[in-house]
Amino acid sequence: MRTETFLKIDKQAVQEIAQAVVKDVRKMARPGEVTSKVPALSDADPDQLGLAILTREGDLVTAGDAHTPFSIQSVSKVFSLELALEAYGDELWTRVGREPSGDPYNSIIDLELHRGIPRNPFMNAGALVVVDALLDLLDPDDEGRAVIDFVSGLLCGEEFTINEKVASSDEEAGHMNRALMSVAKHFDNLHNPVEKVMDAYVHQCAIELSCQQLARAGRFLMLEGPDEAASRKGAAGRRARRILSLMTTCGQYDGSGEFAYRVGLPAKSGVGGGILAIVPNTASIAVWSPGLDESGNSLLGTLALEMLTDTIEWSVFGAVKTL
Amino acid sequence: MRTETFLKIDKQAVQEIAQAVVKDVRKMARPGEVTSKVPALSDADPDQLGLAILTREGDLVTAGDAHTPFSIQSVSKVFSLELALEAYGDELWTRVGREPSGDPYNSIIDLELHRGIPRNPFMNAGALVVVDALLDLLDPDDEGRAVIDFVSGLLCGEEFTINEKVASSDEEAGHMNRALMSVAKHFDNLHNPVEKVMDAYVHQCAIELSCQQLARAGRFLMLEGPDEAASRKGAAGRRARRILSLMTTCGQYDGSGEFAYRVGLPAKSGVGGGILAIVPNTASIAVWSPGLDESGNSLLGTLALEMLTDTIEWSVFGAVKTL
Amino acid sequence: MRTETFLKIDKQAVQEIAQAVVKDVRKMARPGEVTSKVPALSDADPDQLGLAILTREGDLVTAGDAHTPFSIQSVSKVFSLELALEAYGDELWTRVGREPSGDPYNSIIDLELHRGIPRNPFMNAGALVVVDALLDLLDPDDEGRAVIDFVSGLLCGEEFTINEKVASSDEEAGHMNRALMSVAKHFDNLHNPVEKVMDAYVHQCAIELSCQQLARAGRFLMLEGPDEAASRKGAAGRRARRILSLMTTCGQYDGSGEFAYRVGLPAKSGVGGGILAIVPNTASIAVWSPGLDESGNSLLGTLALEMLTDTIEWSVFGAVKTL
Amino acid sequence: MRTETFLKIDKQAVQEIAQAVVKDVRKMARPGEVTSKVPALSDADPDQLGLAILTREGDLVTAGDAHTPFSIQSVSKVFSLELALEAYGDELWTRVGREPSGDPYNSIIDLELHRGIPRNPFMNAGALVVVDALLDLLDPDDEGRAVIDFVSGLLCGEEFTINEKVASSDEEAGHMNRALMSVAKHFDNLHNPVEKVMDAYVHQCAIELSCQQLARAGRFLMLEGPDEAASRKGAAGRRARRILSLMTTCGQYDGSGEFAYRVGLPAKSGVGGGILAIVPNTASIAVWSPGLDESGNSLLGTLALEMLTDTIEWSVFGAVKTL
Repeated sequence: MRTETFLKIDKQAVQEIAQAVVKDVRKMARPGEVTSKVPALSDADPDQLGLAILTREGDLVTAGDAHTPFSIQSVSKVFSLELALEAYGDELWTRVGREPSGDPYNSIIDLELHRGIPRNPFMNAGALVVVDALLDLLDPDDEGRAVIDFVSGLLCGEEFTINEKVASSDEEAGHMNRALMSVAKHFDNLHNPVEKVMDAYVHQCAIELSCQQLARAGRFLMLEGPDEAASRKGAAGRRARRILSLMTTCGQYDGSGEFAYRVGLPAKSGVGGGILAIVPNTASIAVWSPGLDESGNSLLGTLALEMLTDTIEWSVFGAVKTL
Repeated sequence: MRTETFLKIDKQAVQEIAQAVVKDVRKMARPGEVTSKVPALSDADPDQLGLAILTREGDLVTAGDAHTPFSIQSVSKVFSLELALEAYGDELWTRVGREPSGDPYNSIIDLELHRGIPRNPFMNAGALVVVDALLDLLDPDDEGRAVIDFVSGLLCGEEFTINEKVASSDEEAGHMNRALMSVAKHFDNLHNPVEKVMDAYVHQCAIELSCQQLARAGRFLMLEGPDEAASRKGAAGRRARRILSLMTTCGQYDGSGEFAYRVGLPAKSGVGGGILAIVPNTASIAVWSPGLDESGNSLLGTLALEMLTDTIEWSVFGAVKTL
Repeated sequence: MRTETFLKIDKQAVQEIAQAVVKDVRKMARPGEVTSKVPALSDADPDQLGLAILTREGDLVTAGDAHTPFSIQSVSKVFSLELALEAYGDELWTRVGREPSGDPYNSIIDLELHRGIPRNPFMNAGALVVVDALLDLLDPDDEGRAVIDFVSGLLCGEEFTINEKVASSDEEAGHMNRALMSVAKHFDNLHNPVEKVMDAYVHQCAIELSCQQLARAGRFLMLEGPDEAASRKGAAGRRARRILSLMTTCGQYDGSGEFAYRVGLPAKSGVGGGILAIVPNTASIAVWSPGLDESGNSLLGTLALEMLTDTIEWSVFGAVKTL
Repeated sequence: MRTETFLKIDKQAVQEIAQAVVKDVRKMARPGEVTSKVPALSDADPDQLGLAILTREGDLVTAGDAHTPFSIQSVSKVFSLELALEAYGDELWTRVGREPSGDPYNSIIDLELHRGIPRNPFMNAGALVVVDALLDLLDPDDEGRAVIDFVSGLLCGEEFTINEKVASSDEEAGHMNRALMSVAKHFDNLHNPVEKVMDAYVHQCAIELSCQQLARAGRFLMLEGPDEAASRKGAAGRRARRILSLMTTCGQYDGSGEFAYRVGLPAKSGVGGGILAIVPNTASIAVWSPGLDESGNSLLGTLALEMLTDTIEWSVFGAVKTL
């Protein structure tokens, strides 16, 4: 039962707001710290800030450094989850939970307490189990680049880089991920060799996209829109909607509650400073700035999203009439 | 920037869906276990199921046992949070967090780890600190019935019961709540005497409302709607929207993630089997069935909401076009 | 089967060693921080250091401030455990465990994880359950001063002070202890009212003894010795021996392992800076200095015991021939 | 200052007690469950029970299956600790703690909480760090069999088996150990490759000794005795005494407290059912029975030690005069 009718989104107005937001954010706040966890990413310039918005009409709006590629890192977990849910359906939830965790993204404590079942697919442990599930679908000697192929398809074959230096750096520093996988293996919840899952995982994390590319790649989560051809319908639509629910409750690690409070959009962040946020039925938004807050989410990026959704009234938690 | 136009909600259609949902849920599932935690509630008949929907036009639709009063219990935490946020604004967040917790509703572990700062205002520890903050606003000898007065106002003075037997039962069995308050006091995060906060808390939990009353009381969270007079605007609207974000990430204890996945609405549950769910800008929904699932949320109530929102496409995570 | 013969302990030699130890410790180390947890104790002079040794022959040797009374605090847990074990035997272990805990003395986490069964009788939670068990043996309106009476008997009626100011201070600051008791009550492992157990507990903690008194009070743990009359035999001896095992594994909170490593004696410390250490079949030692280390044990006191046992070769872990 | 004189231990009396103990234990209790954690050990006959006692005079007494070799498993941690303490002295404690843990032998939680510093050298994490420290002393391509060589020396070159099948089984099932090592590596507390440490570790665990061999190998922990030549003196003696303290507080995992309470001897158990217990200055005892209790320690073995020390009055916590 439809209770709303979509109006045409005014591209020009969105464009002006986007540019104002980037300008204001740059003025009002200092960027956070660039990650030291992935050595190859640690020398990024924290002053960069890009924003891209793809509307349901297919209009693309950009502001700031929206054309500079960056390492999408954990944003890739959204793409691997889509593939695994498509392949396994609700059976996937026998191997990974759907609850937010109060703990940091790489906590091993929960994993031991829950006997190898990660809390959710966006914590590292859960993402690694999802990658393992994807590898189960392939030949043993397949290289396991399903996520990269999927993103390539979402971008209609447009080229992008897999940064091998970042992948190697991630792999070398990945001892906690190895620990998580070993615990999962101890509880029979990892089927492939640790290093094979690691290889597939670090390569999907090493995808480099610009904001404008990421916003386009995220379109499949926007669900139905006026453009028939681009709409996600039926089972695929319901699946995307469920991914949006998980992005809302678990997408920003132990900063998910505050993000929902301030921004009010389903989103997934990465340690490279990128965030993909979705306004259901309305827009796919990518923002990027390498400096991170305490929970490991882009500090300026989050602020930009907060200002943007506040201005356009795009929160999933409702529109508020101004007095 | 408005990107949607509200259509008039068809009361008749909603009525038919509501009745079908109640009928189907009764057929398809066995109710869960009635709580044993509050002795005075433990003899409720688990087969009861009520549903009430208040639309933005002010239409009230009911089905099943929608006129039987029940103990709202933790649903009252939404009302106390509104009052505390109104009084303290963002300063409230120095005393309580906004993050979902992977732990059960009465976990004391988090509270010790976070030095007396509860994870969120919907876990017991957080709700008790919120009540303490409300008591701080009153004379020392005020009885502390602010939440009851607030609900009374929301219902335009309509009478309802405060079940003293339930309040006493809650108080007698409330050792874990006393433990939580003592830990908070240890860390200087509880200002009033433990038993005074307890008294105010168990009395707000002992409010008895029917589904139709609860749906009406929840109207203030619906935000803006076509009915100017009933709309929440400006600061009050933004505050309500933020409460909705917290209901989404933290409203169903350690079942919040699954609830968002299945139902897709901001909601708050109580151990008495009631749930208040909000469709922003659209509807306030109350459902009640005393049998609970493992996380302490109404089993049939959750199922009814899942079927309802699936049929009407009311998820905050978007509408999906059927093929 | 006897495999050793006791030699007469040379009082003069012990006296000289004791005095040298006190002198050396004062020279070599700065005292730790005086506790801030019990306000009434926080202004003690950290430079004080007393030592008293009671040998199996009944000789009493003292050095430093051995005649200044101090608050025995948690050292009293040894006396209450003796009384409870005498009354309940091994049945006591259904209410409290016997395992060391890696956590601080007042941790509530373990208590929730183990469903209200404290890890051991020397953590606060365990000591409170022991006091509760002692109160169960009395009339409901008995004041509950069994431990004080017991210590009085051990000192043959010699007078000592119960510091009411310290007791009140302990009671006022005792929120974490109330939390522990409430958790125990939640799991039906506390039978008496929280405040009644608190009252009995803070009063046994508020006993003030000097080192020479504490060493004499500890004599009952020395077991068999050449003095027939003072020896603990049969069941009482075996009970004392078991208390010594618990003092070794759990007596210094989360510093028990290091204490065993450095000192090698069963001992129980208190936040007032006192330590009672026992050389089985040989000596009862009391040491006191108010400054504490990170685990809450007397810094200079531990050091004095380390030097003393090293010199006299009194470790329960064996005598080492010097080259 | 010597306060005891050693009497000659009556070999005949010890022999009679040992045989009576084995006979009685077999009658009075059913063996526990054989471990399922190391597949290659899971088919051991749980009814086997062996006991061997080496006295300070060098007399060897045996009873039951004292000549059947068994997998010493974690008992080997005592030998590796001796080697590492000899090489590193107290510097070793910068890499591993000395506190008992309330958690199971392979808990990863503590390790994350303490930033890669294992609680003690007898939990798996600590033992693996100790092995890593030993490997640091060798050439990179050395096979790392220092513990095996050390045991060989203790047995004066007498042959014993390294069970390769057990080593492989341990290695295959060793995912939790890999997880522990990866966490340590994450915190820079593991220097060698995970699989290299694993290889050295599983081979020292796969040593097979009979009770009579293990009792002899444990002699170095007995410290000083009347036999000059076999005595451990000076620094070596003090080191052994410290190992005994750690065996007392941490040697039986989360059953250490109960073991100290019941048996009263420093001891180290292994999942193969063996226990090495030391009576300082007096005797080295090995007991073996493959069935385990809930904490993973030999059920009949512990019972045999309890009866033995009770009869001979060998507890380190003192001798009790019978009435």
